[in-house]
Amino acid sequence: MTLTLPPAVSPPRRVLMGPGPSDVSPRVLAALAAPTVGHLDPYFLRIMDETQKMLRTVFRTSNELTLAVSGTGSAGMEACVVNLIEPSDRMLVCVNGVFGGRMSDVAGRAGANVTKIERNFGEIFPPNEVAEAVKRVAPKVVGIVHAETSTGARQPLEEIAKAVHDAGALLLVDCVTSLGGIPVEVDAWQLDAVYSGTQKCLSCPPGLSPVTFGPRAIAAIDRRRTKIASWYLDMTMVRNYWGQDRAYHHTAPINMNYGLHEALRIVLEEGLENRFARHARNHKALKAGLKALGIEYSVAEPNQLPMLNSVLIPSGVDDLAVRKQLLAEFGIEIGSGLGPLKGKTWRIGLMGETSTASNVLLFLAALERCLAGQKSNGAGVAAANAFYAS
Amino acid sequence: MTLTLPPAVSPPRRVLMGPGPSDVSPRVLAALAAPTVGHLDPYFLRIMDETQKMLRTVFRTSNELTLAVSGTGSAGMEACVVNLIEPSDRMLVCVNGVFGGRMSDVAGRAGANVTKIERNFGEIFPPNEVAEAVKRVAPKVVGIVHAETSTGARQPLEEIAKAVHDAGALLLVDCVTSLGGIPVEVDAWQLDAVYSGTQKCLSCPPGLSPVTFGPRAIAAIDRRRTKIASWYLDMTMVRNYWGQDRAYHHTAPINMNYGLHEALRIVLEEGLENRFARHARNHKALKAGLKALGIEYSVAEPNQLPMLNSVLIPSGVDDLAVRKQLLAEFGIEIGSGLGPLKGKTWRIGLMGETSTASNVLLFLAALERCLAGQKSNGAGVAAANAFYAS
Repeated sequence: MTLTLPPAVSPPRRVLMGPGPSDVSPRVLAALAAPTVGHLDPYFLRIMDETQKMLRTVFRTSNELTLAVSGTGSAGMEACVVNLIEPSDRMLVCVNGVFGGRMSDVAGRAGANVTKIERNFGEIFPPNEVAEAVKRVAPKVVGIVHAETSTGARQPLEEIAKAVHDAGALLLVDCVTSLGGIPVEVDAWQLDAVYSGTQKCLSCPPGLSPVTFGPRAIAAIDRRRTKIASWYLDMTMVRNYWGQDRAYHHTAPINMNYGLHEALRIVLEEGLENRFARHARNHKALKAGLKALGIEYSVAEPNQLPMLNSVLIPSGVDDLAVRKQLLAEFGIEIGSGLGPLKGKTWRIGLMGETSTASNVLLFLAALERCLAGQKSNGAGVAAANAFYAS
Repeated sequence: MTLTLPPAVSPPRRVLMGPGPSDVSPRVLAALAAPTVGHLDPYFLRIMDETQKMLRTVFRTSNELTLAVSGTGSAGMEACVVNLIEPSDRMLVCVNGVFGGRMSDVAGRAGANVTKIERNFGEIFPPNEVAEAVKRVAPKVVGIVHAETSTGARQPLEEIAKAVHDAGALLLVDCVTSLGGIPVEVDAWQLDAVYSGTQKCLSCPPGLSPVTFGPRAIAAIDRRRTKIASWYLDMTMVRNYWGQDRAYHHTAPINMNYGLHEALRIVLEEGLENRFARHARNHKALKAGLKALGIEYSVAEPNQLPMLNSVLIPSGVDDLAVRKQLLAEFGIEIGSGLGPLKGKTWRIGLMGETSTASNVLLFLAALERCLAGQKSNGAGVAAANAFYAS
């Protein structure tokens, strides 16, 4: 009992340009610090209702079962999988990065009979490849990642959704990194179950996972013969708390939900189209600057995600030394490569609040400093400024 | 897309005297609002280390595997169950309230062969009853609730732990409501796996679940032949993130962990013994006041929890009307009965920050007002004041 107490929390200032969390607005931080009320307080029930409505707008869906799971994005992934999958159900998982691989692992643990189709990290799946696999495997559920946070690749979904539905299967989509940064059209594309995270383009701290389930997914849940493997993530109970019954299930993370509420207000104040345009613009400026420094993307141009710029580390450059210097001298966090890309790529996030011209210019200027010896003539900043001026 | 934005979060002031969440210190709210950093930032890793050390002190354990699960108390329950249980493992669950019942449900979903022993809501289990069941069932794991939030009953654990270990089984204990309010002696009592919540006697908002696993539990996890059913709650991976490897698993809820860090600092500044004494004292004062109003506890005296006072609603009193009036006129939240106690009991929480003489007196005064017509002569307040003066 002779523990010396640590000092109070007092984090250093960071510019969060990694794969998430992204920078958080002071408005969201202030909302987090609003006084806690009970999880069945009429005031909190109103916050839940308002959050659901805003989430439906952001997901572009009318799905009633749209809510924030009480865990981070991976809990949302698990929630989608375990609600749709019963033991021995066939699931096809498209793996072209760490998060597709994770989904396959989650599905196996849920008792699914998993078939994987694979592409190299950074590539995407052509619709016909998925269609053929769906015909061959005849799965109940097909899982795919819209925005692979590990590779920076953007997977088109519309044609794949058609092929999946033609075969009578359900499409489960990881939109952790895409939601709020590029269009996620749940209804127009007919996505059946979708999960996201709060700490990417919504710019709320991590801790909740927005999910939405469409009518086909709900019908599959209602037809289950077995109990959902996870009590905590069982949507048949969670929906009674978020729905009109208000039946107590678990105690919701009250203050995290305050934060998400404010983050969604900020997203909708800006407007989704404006937000997508801002993400695209800052991505292009960053790319112009990186190009001037001779730094190439690890993903083919048409498939590049604007909010997660995965670039090849120039040869001869010390990955860790540069990341440490960026953090120590400028407070800038960027991400390392994951899996087979470790040591080969950097992941530069321009998500939500982080996606600003100031951050693009600061990052390019700071990176030139860290690469000094290789190249430091202001070319990156000049190219980005030229893009912004054009 | 023509959603009218809701107003910003602005919760009413409450006195949280229900079964949790409890009142949160402004210091904890301020910590929640500290700037977000990355989940692998050296600063956040330090916060994790400090949090683990403080959690070990609060749990009174040297267990290395002591950390905060990224979900609320029910996620902690599920984490303990799914890590210890493999399909067909026998588990004995002691059910004398809603949370024992929940544990049995969670265990069944994890594939356990579950045997329940049951007691009426509000009763506790004599050690010999558990010992006999353990001999009969020969389970791998025995699950029991230390402080039943649904009934207000306190379950002694030390003798039960001996009986469980004599039979070669593991003891899994729900300390959601007890931790920080009454002694939880993980090492001295030899509890093998324990989970708690942040929103009870630790007075942090809900969103994390402190857990600790002892050497027997870790050995059982290391001996598993099957993968843990939940990826999100898989301690073999989570411990590599909280441990020295710092291997990325999921993105931790950064700001919630800031809040827990500050809440634990407050707990340890006060000191555990002082904190237990405060909880006991305010409980006794409340009880003296309630007695003067003719209100009886639903639990036998020796088994009453100081932080959760479960009392019988006086006959002729409208449960919902009184709770609504307490909330509307005084901002006081108390809890209704759960399960078979619905409509029969109130649950009056005096947890953590909420456990003060001011709240005891305010509550008694407010309750007398709500019961006016039955009784309103200041007797409750007078009795509590007499207790405090004695």
